[in-house]
Amino acid sequence: MILIDEQKRNAAAAAVAYVENKMILGLGSGSTTEFALRLLAKKVAAGLHVTGVPSSIATARLARRLRIPLISDEGAFKRIDLTIDGADEVDPDLNLIKGGGGALTREKIVATRSERVIIIVDQKKLVKQLGKFPLPVEVLPFGWQSTAEMLHNLGAHVALRMKDRKIFRTDNGNFILDCAFYKIPDPQTLARQIREIAGVVEVGFFVGIGDLVIVGKQDGGVEERWSV
Amino acid sequence: MILIDEQKRNAAAAAVAYVENKMILGLGSGSTTEFALRLLAKKVAAGLHVTGVPSSIATARLARRLRIPLISDEGAFKRIDLTIDGADEVDPDLNLIKGGGGALTREKIVATRSERVIIIVDQKKLVKQLGKFPLPVEVLPFGWQSTAEMLHNLGAHVALRMKDRKIFRTDNGNFILDCAFYKIPDPQTLARQIREIAGVVEVGFFVGIGDLVIVGKQDGGVEERWSV
Repeated sequence: MILIDEQKRNAAAAAVAYVENKMILGLGSGSTTEFALRLLAKKVAAGLHVTGVPSSIATARLARRLRIPLISDEGAFKRIDLTIDGADEVDPDLNLIKGGGGALTREKIVATRSERVIIIVDQKKLVKQLGKFPLPVEVLPFGWQSTAEMLHNLGAHVALRMKDRKIFRTDNGNFILDCAFYKIPDPQTLARQIREIAGVVEVGFFVGIGDLVIVGKQDGGVEERWSV
Repeated sequence: MILIDEQKRNAAAAAVAYVENKMILGLGSGSTTEFALRLLAKKVAAGLHVTGVPSSIATARLARRLRIPLISDEGAFKRIDLTIDGADEVDPDLNLIKGGGGALTREKIVATRSERVIIIVDQKKLVKQLGKFPLPVEVLPFGWQSTAEMLHNLGAHVALRMKDRKIFRTDNGNFILDCAFYKIPDPQTLARQIREIAGVVEVGFFVGIGDLVIVGKQDGGVEERWSV
């Protein structure tokens, strides 16, 4: 059994193999994506031409340090060829929970504008049913307590995300409510109900968005699961 | 036929008559609401106790100047007794388009947490079918051009709202895309489709939110239309 980091790196390597010259690339966020960025940087140093669309300020900073070229205007991209990103949970239908790092909204914007989305995970992220990982929901600071109450009314145990004893702020200046539903039999319906609440900016369900999930396995191999 | 401002003031006066002592009051935004705030301030000066939840920074500023007491923490309100707000269009089912002033998201948060919502308008705001007024959609600056393209794909002519030659920013720091659909036969379905786009924060449709619409009429009277 290999280390988690090796599982992540193996999945990342398999994903980066799909990158082609001159692609507009959506760059996810988080520790697994970081492995992909480092591998991508080597290809760029060797002559590959790509333009990255970073899904978080942290990813933009790392990509710049690694000399991966980025779009100049974060508002101006349209079509993206391929996005590589991680996930917190993946179910058998390739539905995802994302947002542990707090970048879910920009990640979803980037992913939903992409021709193809590859999700890279270690084996631990595979679940039979979503919901063990609390569902992150990005909300406006204005009225957040009433928004939390409406999420509670949908059955969630709701916690305002903190960091260093302060309220965590997303790159968009908003708050994250981590919503523990424990079991989520119907992610699509729940996502719609949550998104209908005024004050909710985005929800960490990614339903029907991932085209290919690449799993770095404990035995050192990788498994590719295509969306049907 | 009386002036528009008199129609607005008459509607505002009829709405303020519904305010009771010790209410938590949602305070809308815009010129018609301003009449209500001025009338409310007189009642407060005469001894009425209320606590206001302002739906915009502009409304908060005016309410403070008028000495209407406000909640101290904009995140902390839960139940609101009554909200009084204006609208840009009202259809026969009391569905609304709001957001001409750019405060739609906070207005919707406040309204959807309210026991009762009274909408005050002059007669010109009544329409047979919504859509002559462009639908305001609040969007994140990140990826806004791709968000605009997705709204365009739903059939809208999309314009980024400007103010004084700069991009208009909402109180939440976001952009407004004014979406001209011209005719909107099914506001509820369209609202859901728009809200499903990652990057959309809120949409200016208020469907099933207004309990009572008070119209200041051209003949100097007011008409009260209750939601059925």
